[in-house]
This record gives sequence, C-alpha cells and structure tokens, in this order.
Amino acid sequence: MPTQLRLLRRGYRAAAAAAAVAASKAGARRKVLDGTPAALGFRMPAEWEPHDQCWIGWPDAQGFWRDAAAPAQKAFANVVDAISRFEPVTVCCNATQYARVVHLMEHKSNVRVVEMSACLVWLRDLGPSVRILLSVLWRKSLYSLELALLTHYLFYHQFVVREGDTRLRREIAGVDWQYNAYGGYNGLFGPEDHQLNRRKGHEEHITEDNLVARKVLELERIPRFETNFVLEGGSIHVDGEGTCITTEQCLCHGNRNPHMSKDEIENQLKTHLGVSKVIWLPKGLYGDEMISGHVDNICCFTGPSTVLLSWIDDKSDPQYEHSAAAFDVLSNTTDAKGRKLDIIKIHVPGPLYMTEEVAQPFLGSVALGQQRLAGSYVNFYIANGGVVAPAFGDKWDEEARKILEKVFPKHEVVMVEGGREIVLGGGNIHCATQQQPAVCPHPSDADTMEGQG
Amino acid sequence: MPTQLRLLRRGYRAAAAAAAVAASKAGARRKVLDGTPAALGFRMPAEWEPHDQCWIGWPDAQGFWRDAAAPAQKAFANVVDAISRFEPVTVCCNATQYARVVHLMEHKSNVRVVEMSACLVWLRDLGPSVRILLSVLWRKSLYSLELALLTHYLFYHQFVVREGDTRLRREIAGVDWQYNAYGGYNGLFGPEDHQLNRRKGHEEHITEDNLVARKVLELERIPRFETNFVLEGGSIHVDGEGTCITTEQCLCHGNRNPHMSKDEIENQLKTHLGVSKVIWLPKGLYGDEMISGHVDNICCFTGPSTVLLSWIDDKSDPQYEHSAAAFDVLSNTTDAKGRKLDIIKIHVPGPLYMTEEVAQPFLGSVALGQQRLAGSYVNFYIANGGVVAPAFGDKWDEEARKILEKVFPKHEVVMVEGGREIVLGGGNIHCATQQQPAVCPHPSDADTMEGQG
Repeated sequence: MPTQLRLLRRGYRAAAAAAAVAASKAGARRKVLDGTPAALGFRMPAEWEPHDQCWIGWPDAQGFWRDAAAPAQKAFANVVDAISRFEPVTVCCNATQYARVVHLMEHKSNVRVVEMSACLVWLRDLGPSVRILLSVLWRKSLYSLELALLTHYLFYHQFVVREGDTRLRREIAGVDWQYNAYGGYNGLFGPEDHQLNRRKGHEEHITEDNLVARKVLELERIPRFETNFVLEGGSIHVDGEGTCITTEQCLCHGNRNPHMSKDEIENQLKTHLGVSKVIWLPKGLYGDEMISGHVDNICCFTGPSTVLLSWIDDKSDPQYEHSAAAFDVLSNTTDAKGRKLDIIKIHVPGPLYMTEEVAQPFLGSVALGQQRLAGSYVNFYIANGGVVAPAFGDKWDEEARKILEKVFPKHEVVMVEGGREIVLGGGNIHCATQQQPAVCPHPSDADTMEGQG
Repeated sequence: MPTQLRLLRRGYRAAAAAAAVAASKAGARRKVLDGTPAALGFRMPAEWEPHDQCWIGWPDAQGFWRDAAAPAQKAFANVVDAISRFEPVTVCCNATQYARVVHLMEHKSNVRVVEMSACLVWLRDLGPSVRILLSVLWRKSLYSLELALLTHYLFYHQFVVREGDTRLRREIAGVDWQYNAYGGYNGLFGPEDHQLNRRKGHEEHITEDNLVARKVLELERIPRFETNFVLEGGSIHVDGEGTCITTEQCLCHGNRNPHMSKDEIENQLKTHLGVSKVIWLPKGLYGDEMISGHVDNICCFTGPSTVLLSWIDDKSDPQYEHSAAAFDVLSNTTDAKGRKLDIIKIHVPGPLYMTEEVAQPFLGSVALGQQRLAGSYVNFYIANGGVVAPAFGDKWDEEARKILEKVFPKHEVVMVEGGREIVLGGGNIHCATQQQPAVCPHPSDADTMEGQG
C-alpha cells in the first residue's frame, strides 16, 4: 500500500477513533472509571497494533542536556520526522520552547505541538533537593538519574483498550500510574530506606509529577483509571495476548512499591494491563541502574511469542551476565498462551561510554569519561507500518538494521541518526514516546467509513 | 428535545467534526492555507450556528484580579458550568493553575482542561514596560488595560468554515489575527503616536502574544490563515449571512492598523470574514475606552437582521450618547441581504462603578471608587441551545433575562452570577470565550452517523 494511502486510511482511522471517544464520552459521561481495567475487560494492546498517534517529549536547556539541548533537539526532531511518516505525532514541550518547536514543525502537518510543562516544572521543584544529595552520592550516578527523568517523561501512563460490540470501534482508557521519579531518592540510596519513598496516594493533592498523564488524557477526552501502583511504562512490555515481560531489578527493587511482595506486584500488572502471565527477567541493561533497569532497554516483544534480546558476545563484559540470565529465563518459560518463545539476539552498540567532551558541560571537572552508556537497539518505537530505531554511528548499526528488517518484514525500518545524543539522556526512542492505540484498528472498517464520507 | 439527547447528538456532531478535520488534514496535508478565507469560500459563521465546543480562559493571581483571583475563578467556574450544559468546553489555564483547575473539573466530563500559558507569559513580559508608563498615565486607565488583557485573552483568532460537497461535513480553518495588546501603548497615548504601534509582521519571529491562536489550532489540527491584520475577535460580530458589525472607535482608532484607511480596514474584514457589508457603529460602550470600545459590549446580532443594543434611558448618562448614535446608524442601514434591522434595546446594568473595596487590593491608595465599569448584558455567549449571560446582582438583571428569553425563544437562557466580578477584569462572558463552529452542523446527519455506530 502506498504511504499516502496508508496515511489517508490512518487519518480516517484516527477520525473514527475520535468519533468513538466522543460517542463514548457523550454516553458514559465519566472522566474516572470505577473498577480495574482487567475487571472491565480492558487490556494493554501490543505496540505493533495500530495507533491513532504517537506522543513524544521535547528536551530543553532546563534539563541536563549538553549545549543547551541543541544536539538532543536535533536528534528528537529526526525521531519526530521519522515517526510522522507513519502516524500522527504530538510533540509535548515546555511553554518557553513552544514558539521554537511549532516553527520547526510548521510544514509537518502530521505533527502537532502542544504545551505541556508539568514534568519540567516538577524538575525545577526537584532541583534544590538534588543538589543537597550531591555530597553523598557519586556524581556520575546522580547525573544519570537526572537525565533519565527528562527523557522518560511521558511514560507514567498506559493506554488500554476494550473491544466493542462491532469491529468498527473499541473503547480506550488510560491507566494513570503513580510516579515517584524512578524510585526517587530511595532509588539512589537503596531499597532499605523505605521511609524515603515519595509515592503519593490519591488522598493527597494532585502533584505536579503526576500531571502529564492527566494532561494527555484530558486533551484527548479519554477516561482514566486511577491507581496507587507506582510504575513507569518503560518497565513493562506486553504482547497484547496476555503476556507481560518486566525485570525483577526494577519492579522488585523496593523503591517503587516497597510495601508489596512480588506476587502482589504481579497481581497489579495483571489487574491493570489485562495480562495473565508475567515473565520476570532478573536484570535490565548494564548501565541502566539508576532507573533500576527498565525492560525496554534489554528486551521487547516483536510479535506473538517472539522477543528481541539485547546481547553481547564478549563474556568478560558486565552486560553478558545480564543478557545470559535473561536468555535463561526466556528459553525456559512460555507465554500466556503456553507457547515457547522465539528469542532473537541483537548486539548492543559499542559498548558506548560517556566522553569527556560531552560530560564537561554538565559537571565541570568531574571525570565522567568512562561512564557506561545504556545504549540499546531494543529501545525502538513500532509505528503504523514502520519501526523507528536509534543509530549510534556505531559498527553494530548495520547488523541491528538487518535484524530489525528480518524481524519486522512488513514494516519499514528507519534507523535515526542521533541515538548516541539521546542515550546521553539515559534513555532512547522508546523511552521518549508513547503510542496511543487506534480505536478503530481495522483498515477495512476505515475503508467503509471512507466510502460513507 | 431532552438535554441528554441533545448532548448525545452534539457528541456525534463533535465526532463527525473531528472526522472531517482528520480527513481534511490527511488529504490537504497543510497547516497554513494559501490565499484568503473569502477567496477560498470560507466565511465566519454566526455565533448561533452549531458549535463543536467552546474555548474559555482562566483567571489567575498573576493577572490583576483581586484576592488572588479567587472571586473571579468562582465566577468563571460558574460560566464553565453553564456553558458545559450545552456543549463541550475547553478551559485553558496557566501551568501553575492546572492541578487546581483539573481537580475542580474532575466530575465535569463535558469539560477538558488544557495548559496554555502563552498569554500569561506575555503579560509577564509586558509588566516592566507597563510600570514605566505609570508616571505619565492616569492610573485607573492603566488598570483597565491590564485587566482587559487577561479577560479577552483567547480572542485573537477566528474560526471560519466552508461548506462541503455534502451536508455531512464542512471544512474549518482559523484566521490567526495579529495581536498588539488592544492597540498597545499607542492605544493609551492616542492615535497620533503611530510609531509606537507594536504590530509584528510574519517576517519577524513568532512572538509570545500571538501564540494562543496557534496553540488552539494546533491542538485541534485545524489549518490556519495567516494575516498581517491586527484585530481582536471581540471587536466584530457577524450574522453569518454576509454582514459584519463593528465600531469606528476601535477599528479606526489608528492603534491597530494605523497605515490603513477605513476602506482598507473594511476590505480586510470582507476578505477574512467572508462578509460583503460592514456596519460601522460610532462608539462602543462607555467605560470601555481602554480597549477602544469593542462592539461585543454594546451590540450583537441575535439572529438574521436582528440586533440587540445596550441602552440606557437616562439622557444625562454618558452612555446615552453612545447608544443613541448606534441606534441612529442601525435604524438607517440594511444588512448584506438588504433587510432592515430589527433593533432590540437592552438596558445596561447599574450603571456600575468600581468600589474602593475591590480597587484597593490592586493599587493601594489610588482611589478608583468612582471608575465606571463596562457592564453589559450584551456580552453573553450563545451556546448550542443555550444563552449564557452575566448577572450583576443588579435591578436590571431580571429585565435582561426577559428580553433574552424573548429574543432567543428556542434557547434556554442562563444568567450566571458573578458578572460583576468578571467585569472588574474589563470584559465579560463573551470576551472570555470563543466558539468553535461545528463541522457537521446538521442534526439529521448526526442522526445518520448515530445509526451507523
């Protein structure tokens, strides 16, 4: 199908989605849904299921990006450009960046720019406290954490869908996770200091760090599920058919939900994502410790019963043990439907390290030149008909492309230059984006609508 | 028709509108339209034509509202409540107000809250310059200007529509007026100081004070027409059938478009609003001088060939001459279709004056107790099936309601308490709102869509 036609169909699809949402709103008249997603028949769809649009954040000089964030912005613009070839994109930026970004996107009619500064406001609020910690922490650890906060900032909500009576539309809702800054100070200090956990309950006033999810859902007039469960979207992957994959390093760390056992946490995943099986990898990527090893840097589903695993051949590299342990788990389990998993290895770039050149602007004389970067080709975004993955200007880029093209034979694989610049922020393309599932996922229905227009 | 059913239909209508927009976008792929609205067949619809939604601003303590804007916010909440009974409402607020407003609107599923702080940012930028002016101006004049800036802040764009090939949908676009703060400093100094006019051309970088229009249009993925013409939406009214009504006091003041003759200004209105006849009232409401007398405080269309005129019986009141002059013009002209106008008088409230109590918090010892307030019952909003008008707690309130009920026999008239609090800000309900025309304006088509769902 030609890209233009596909885009056209996506347009109708999005329109139908909006129609369904509006109709649903007019009928239900509720912003907050009672009950849990699973109990009401909602499930989190797989990333390869059709989207209505993609949400993405925007780095700025207020975050810890080098050179006033200019190189990072260039990389993000490349990502936006790539994704918008396949589906509509909404770029969320700080008020002070709005004029610049909207001008930059002037001729990209598939991209809209919205002001959304909550997380940045929150970062400002955090600033002073972080500086207090400086004296008791490794500075390079602190650095990683701060960067990660910005790059991941749209990831504390999750869309879920429920099939409707007809194929024409399904319902969409959002799960408004609680967010405590990747474990917050407790994450840095270690799991023992539970009293430092900053998770906030519903009984407290709405806090800035939880507002992005609400802003997204308000904008789209999408109802939401409230929860006390602390989670970032980057710490889970699903196959849309009942299976979730995550890491013990992150979810069982004790800095997100310290009062819960592993079973209770697994229950929360089942309740909120509509899954029946959780696969626990021991650890995330080496170098990703400050956010406790999100799964989206080490492993993801690429289709039913198929996973892609970050790999390294060098057994002396610290990453090897992480990947091998994950491989062990994956090869000895089944998915929710009882199928064995097809495990495809993809070599990590580099290994990549911070350089003195890019480290200097942030922390002056502190030597960060040898800090390992959490670079990974697994941190890509699956768009409608496309896969947008980071290129690191590295010798492994080309092999990564070949693997992705083989794994996604029906998708166009776009490797975006600038992955190295983005990983300086602690995450990558998948971390910075959030897919919004299509409410009318079937092209044939979209065609029907087209005929009626 | 029961309200719920009407709401449901509006829901489908909004959905269909979104569908049309998405389809239009997918096809046209343009954010900025070439040519002028009139040349492309667009026209500004009358306010009583069906809407998809209503946009409204939100006062906060950063503006010049008394008591940290709490009384004004209560009044605005009442307005939102009233309008949302008839159509969806989008409340635009400063980032710092977001948590509060979204919480306030938690159970109003017909209301969404979006962050939109550009104008407030712009006010901050203006602040220091305004203070410089303090020594050469009457303080009470300055006060009025600053208040007006906030209350009117969504009014520098205008929606226009173009009929489609079918009754099912029409196209929508926005006219992105240039905005120079109600004549800016030139407006205060008088029309002679043309060199102080701060109008900005397209060749210059996008300025903060022009960003609200773009933010609204970006959010809705609605394309826009660019123009160098300076205008605020409150200074015009149209009947949707070719006639525009405005004031010479405002548009010919020389502080908006000083390089243009009256004929050229009239031409701009015809070009951008798709009208063929402009009716020029000499002046706006007495007390509204600081924004040069917007027409929406003194006169508005209530239907084809029918206008409502702010009136006062007391010939010794300075308002009398304004109203009588307008009456003269209106009774000696015809609309675009050659029809004589039916002129209905509606008595102004009060007259209302500032009190020392409400003036003190702003300017300390400056005596503003006798400043005339630009109170007017004409400054109402026509929603889908409803008319939302300000009540001032005044002896004229009840008569105003009776007149509005007579003029709008098919609408439910809601008089909102707190009009006096809002007028302290220099405008009222009409000034603070902006209707977004329905793209699918025909209920029968909405029913058709419903049948297909």
